[in-house]
Amino acid sequence: MYPMAAPFITQSWLNAADDFSLAALRGRVVLVEVFQMLCPGCVSHALPQAQKAARHFSATDLVLIGLHSVFEHHQAQGTRAALQAFAHEYRLEFPIAIDAPGDADAVPQTMRHYAMRGTPTLLLIDREGRLRIQHFGVLEDMALGAMIMSVIAEGALAVASASSNPAAGCDELGCVTP
Amino acid sequence: MYPMAAPFITQSWLNAADDFSLAALRGRVVLVEVFQMLCPGCVSHALPQAQKAARHFSATDLVLIGLHSVFEHHQAQGTRAALQAFAHEYRLEFPIAIDAPGDADAVPQTMRHYAMRGTPTLLLIDREGRLRIQHFGVLEDMALGAMIMSVIAEGALAVASASSNPAAGCDELGCVTP
Amino acid sequence: MYPMAAPFITQSWLNAADDFSLAALRGRVVLVEVFQMLCPGCVSHALPQAQKAARHFSATDLVLIGLHSVFEHHQAQGTRAALQAFAHEYRLEFPIAIDAPGDADAVPQTMRHYAMRGTPTLLLIDREGRLRIQHFGVLEDMALGAMIMSVIAEGALAVASASSNPAAGCDELGCVTP
Amino acid sequence: MYPMAAPFITQSWLNAADDFSLAALRGRVVLVEVFQMLCPGCVSHALPQAQKAARHFSATDLVLIGLHSVFEHHQAQGTRAALQAFAHEYRLEFPIAIDAPGDADAVPQTMRHYAMRGTPTLLLIDREGRLRIQHFGVLEDMALGAMIMSVIAEGALAVASASSNPAAGCDELGCVTP
Repeated sequence: MYPMAAPFITQSWLNAADDFSLAALRGRVVLVEVFQMLCPGCVSHALPQAQKAARHFSATDLVLIGLHSVFEHHQAQGTRAALQAFAHEYRLEFPIAIDAPGDADAVPQTMRHYAMRGTPTLLLIDREGRLRIQHFGVLEDMALGAMIMSVIAEGALAVASASSNPAAGCDELGCVTP
Repeated sequence: MYPMAAPFITQSWLNAADDFSLAALRGRVVLVEVFQMLCPGCVSHALPQAQKAARHFSATDLVLIGLHSVFEHHQAQGTRAALQAFAHEYRLEFPIAIDAPGDADAVPQTMRHYAMRGTPTLLLIDREGRLRIQHFGVLEDMALGAMIMSVIAEGALAVASASSNPAAGCDELGCVTP
Repeated sequence: MYPMAAPFITQSWLNAADDFSLAALRGRVVLVEVFQMLCPGCVSHALPQAQKAARHFSATDLVLIGLHSVFEHHQAQGTRAALQAFAHEYRLEFPIAIDAPGDADAVPQTMRHYAMRGTPTLLLIDREGRLRIQHFGVLEDMALGAMIMSVIAEGALAVASASSNPAAGCDELGCVTP
Repeated sequence: MYPMAAPFITQSWLNAADDFSLAALRGRVVLVEVFQMLCPGCVSHALPQAQKAARHFSATDLVLIGLHSVFEHHQAQGTRAALQAFAHEYRLEFPIAIDAPGDADAVPQTMRHYAMRGTPTLLLIDREGRLRIQHFGVLEDMALGAMIMSVIAEGALAVASASSNPAAGCDELGCVTP
């Protein structure tokens, strides 16, 4: 029914060994926050919300992972040092995968493989490793709490993925790939 | 395992016929917001949150009910007219039960029967009519969304009912029965 | 240039003697918050903002006064007991004038005399007793702070630069040089 | 009484010609927001607040200037390209001075000259070019509005009482008399 979540194609990891992988998390629900450090909607909303979710649910049920998928401003946010400084200042202590760069500084490889529309994007992967939710843009806390619990509790969930079709570029909600 | 939710002992209903009852809602999850119109934590937090929950979940899954349980300031908030004015100004359009008064203006009868500690109190009743959650005080949106989804999806839920033991009287979180 | 602020026509006062009057406050700037206890915009915004202003400015410069002007739902909010219960729950400890009722339960007398359009209305009266601002509806904090300061003074500003001595490094408030 | 604000020692400017200087702004009050692009308190609070102030006051009275004073994570945030990307994403359209680097990547020169304690720091410079306020850390909107207005003027206040003509009845903003 649900497809398996494809492995991440990473350059390296922050806060985890470089051979870290999604497969190691089988048995737990995984919340993946895909972001760029200069994406306003990621900084002000999506990352704090993901951290709140990680605090709210038991670590034996839910694991939080970041995926840094830079598709613009490569010079400013494309280095490991820039991401390290950002993670340090914003106290991001969960494992963060650095997406492998695409050709000619375009959309990076994991982002392209998942056909993500931009950042922030949230992935929810169930205990069996299947991709249950892929959501671009902002979610209300109540909706996210319900989604996570639904996957944890393994009931049926109809996600009303209500986000419309934003134009390329960045706005308050996030950044859309060209 | 879970006890059946006791019937409400009501004086009358607002936004519903006077013979309205919980029993009529069997098959759907029922969210009951117990409040007083002069309880700051009810007005600023609990009622708006309950309305947000009602918007977020499908009406075929979740029904919102109010219970006005006045245990203080009876003169100011104890009349049907006062509650009607309040419901009008705050756009409360869901059915609201008016709790039957206790002896000598003390704690009203439904509130006493449920041994509620004050307002706001939230009850969550499952599709079979069993009382699943009774929570006094403030809940985060993410927690409430998760709880409702859990009861809707019928998984196991361990509610960490973390609220401590507040003293009698009102504070920002609500009002505690003496 | 500016008209004198007309005396309030009151039924009685809460948190003050019944012969309290604006005239007694000459020499200080007076912020008057005109409200109804069942007016959502008053409860959620205007009253908390007025209390914040009273905390922010020195009591020798600014005095906060309430004016309860009931023009609807007289049965629910028109009694002194109802207002007392409300003031108790919401911790309103400043003097509150109860506007004298109009004919046939219509707009009360002070509200009519000032030709106010509704609640919340904010009045700002200068040290000489002149009405400087009469504003209906919501104001941003920054605007209100600027208005009050403008009326308070042409004087130098004593900034209570209250920030303590944080350690080097970054926290939520900012980053400190080593 | 008040010292003149020392000239900024800049590497270059964003959103302004490179010979831009504070002196050109004499006659207007200048609000300077000193920040680092990876400083959480700057991004979430100080910069949005400064932009709100710039919107709230007339441009003939108040000018907003940024000063990017990088004293840590030079690799990540110390390049003009990184700042440009940040300014683009966060829609910073006001002139931003890039502080001249200190020796050996330490505290930059303007920051050192002003003996600033870190970021965010706010400077308020009056019409005569004197430094009136230097504040490190977070300020409430109401306090900042009051400070700016205090420095702007002894003049009369033109309140743009912008509220339109609402219909009778109550809405979120308040209640209108019939």
